[in-house]
Amino acid sequence: MKFNNRNVFISENAIIGENVKIGDNTSIYDNVVIEENTIISDNCTIGEPTLDYYVNDKYKNPKTVIGKNSLIRSYAIIYAGSTFGDEFSTGHRVTIRENTKFGKKCRVGTVSDIQGNCSFGNYCWLHSNVHIGQGSEMGNFVFIYPYVVLTNDPTPPSNTCLGPKIGDFSQIAVSSILLPGIKIGKHVLVGAGSVVGKDVEDYMLVVGNPAKSIKDVRDIKSRETGESHYPWPNKFDRGMPWQAEGYKKWINNKDNE
Amino acid sequence: MKFNNRNVFISENAIIGENVKIGDNTSIYDNVVIEENTIISDNCTIGEPTLDYYVNDKYKNPKTVIGKNSLIRSYAIIYAGSTFGDEFSTGHRVTIRENTKFGKKCRVGTVSDIQGNCSFGNYCWLHSNVHIGQGSEMGNFVFIYPYVVLTNDPTPPSNTCLGPKIGDFSQIAVSSILLPGIKIGKHVLVGAGSVVGKDVEDYMLVVGNPAKSIKDVRDIKSRETGESHYPWPNKFDRGMPWQAEGYKKWINNKDNE
Amino acid sequence: MKFNNRNVFISENAIIGENVKIGDNTSIYDNVVIEENTIISDNCTIGEPTLDYYVNDKYKNPKTVIGKNSLIRSYAIIYAGSTFGDEFSTGHRVTIRENTKFGKKCRVGTVSDIQGNCSFGNYCWLHSNVHIGQGSEMGNFVFIYPYVVLTNDPTPPSNTCLGPKIGDFSQIAVSSILLPGIKIGKHVLVGAGSVVGKDVEDYMLVVGNPAKSIKDVRDIKSRETGESHYPWPNKFDRGMPWQAEGYKKWINNKDNE
Repeated sequence: MKFNNRNVFISENAIIGENVKIGDNTSIYDNVVIEENTIISDNCTIGEPTLDYYVNDKYKNPKTVIGKNSLIRSYAIIYAGSTFGDEFSTGHRVTIRENTKFGKKCRVGTVSDIQGNCSFGNYCWLHSNVHIGQGSEMGNFVFIYPYVVLTNDPTPPSNTCLGPKIGDFSQIAVSSILLPGIKIGKHVLVGAGSVVGKDVEDYMLVVGNPAKSIKDVRDIKSRETGESHYPWPNKFDRGMPWQAEGYKKWINNKDNE
Repeated sequence: MKFNNRNVFISENAIIGENVKIGDNTSIYDNVVIEENTIISDNCTIGEPTLDYYVNDKYKNPKTVIGKNSLIRSYAIIYAGSTFGDEFSTGHRVTIRENTKFGKKCRVGTVSDIQGNCSFGNYCWLHSNVHIGQGSEMGNFVFIYPYVVLTNDPTPPSNTCLGPKIGDFSQIAVSSILLPGIKIGKHVLVGAGSVVGKDVEDYMLVVGNPAKSIKDVRDIKSRETGESHYPWPNKFDRGMPWQAEGYKKWINNKDNE
Repeated sequence: MKFNNRNVFISENAIIGENVKIGDNTSIYDNVVIEENTIISDNCTIGEPTLDYYVNDKYKNPKTVIGKNSLIRSYAIIYAGSTFGDEFSTGHRVTIRENTKFGKKCRVGTVSDIQGNCSFGNYCWLHSNVHIGQGSEMGNFVFIYPYVVLTNDPTPPSNTCLGPKIGDFSQIAVSSILLPGIKIGKHVLVGAGSVVGKDVEDYMLVVGNPAKSIKDVRDIKSRETGESHYPWPNKFDRGMPWQAEGYKKWINNKDNE
């Protein structure tokens, strides 16, 4: 089916690791490093040059690194100058601009748009169609759901860029907006459709437009079991590093992460 | 213009009906059936394999069926294992995942993302950029407008998947959110930008964040005519099966649909 | 890197100006005019035919004009019958339908979807993922931020199409909705996540769902300087025609624009 080596372009300056697969109609540009066992599916563009390429004869493509055992699905556009830890995976049609750094085992969903100069820790999962403005910073285990927008300009238009920061384990539910420069603590839950304009403390549930603190997430019960669902790592371990031993044991182990 | 048979890939195991057109740069993978007179435009991927393809040497692509007289516009990604009734049409860049079933004469707009394991009746119209979470169920004549999100996880993240259900003739206006597991009745109108967290009865207009019932849709007047606009089939028939005889006559005819 | 003349299709009836670059895998269809020094990057479709093409043997592609010194980034789909002033630029994956007119020096961001029959003045900047419904009209210097939706049907579904109108210099912040037929004055600021259902007077800040007038934008201070930030042209000039002389001098000069 896929991987027929049809209409593929790979720069002479790209470094392709062992056992890497490159899909049909994909272009890999200068100074891209793809580590072993990674799959770049069809119709992808890896190492997309920045605007300078079109206007500067001496343009040199910055280095792009995609870690091993990754899976980039079709129609991704990944700009030069970003780096991705091992086991990175994407949906289709993601756009990730320059100078962005992902830790290991992160995921980015279909159509998501990461505007550049952003940082993500490990195990961050971005679902379909999220928009991460320039200068945003995410910790580890941050999950962002569809149609969430992270903004950065407090008085549009201006030259100010204040990306939001999100702490470890926080969950940002669908279609929420994080206003410029706000800090979301750890283990926070932002409810669907919220507009968050103030900093949020650890373990808070915030909801609404404008978002208000409702209660401690540890007081939220599962509809199915009636038990506390948060901190969620106690109840969800698929793909997480505590899958074998459980979160409590894992978090108390000083050697973790 | 189009259809120059340039850079086309069609699996030996695909079944292509009479008078089907396949656009340039399009890939049709294993076990895809495309029925007669259907047009698959350029740069499409039909029968996209699931994750298992990348990791299982014995992977076999499930069957995908696109009904006759359909029009799939460019850059569609349609996963293997979904089926589409006759006269299906799409905008550009739609992504439709596995195990989804569409009835006849449905439409899906540009950039829309259907996450799989969903069902749609007949004559469902999804406009641009809707996001339909896994496990959602739609009746017949359901219209969903841009940037609407159907969610399914009540306590994110969890392994629970409770897709919303939407009844016949209901209209979900732009940028609304349907929270997990809610049931929308028939002939409902969800106003723009609503966050719907409770079940909605037939014929209700609901609006706001959180959404509240405002009035019976039959009390909404057209700005232009001053007459009741709902039930909308009395006033709108373009492309609908009652176009010839009118909705009242059609709905009273036991042989319809 | 790019521009290897690989898998390019250019209609015999297209007119390509001097020093134009056409990217790999791009298709330029009938009656497209691309003026000098413009770059059409890879995987673009310029002059996409309308629905009539698929059903009418005598279909003739309407004229499409892309002004000089423009930059269309990859995966754009631009329908036949639209015109773009000089120095037009886009992100990736934009979809722009027929009968739309852009003035000069406009920008359209990644994944944005312009539904056709729209008009834009000069220096309009649309960021990523905006949705502009049919029949919308924008003045000059209008900035629209991600996930904004302009709607046009007051009683969905109907055959009525009332696109919003936005006056010069107005700013529509992220994820806002403009309801059908509303008129936004000049120098307005619509706050993030607003649902605007009433006309808005010049210089107003409106916020909320439903949006309410909060104050005069001239009373909004910059967080950084403590000075009034609006009218924004006094504080922001990047890429604007008053960059050399300042906005006050420029606006008072009868020869401007």
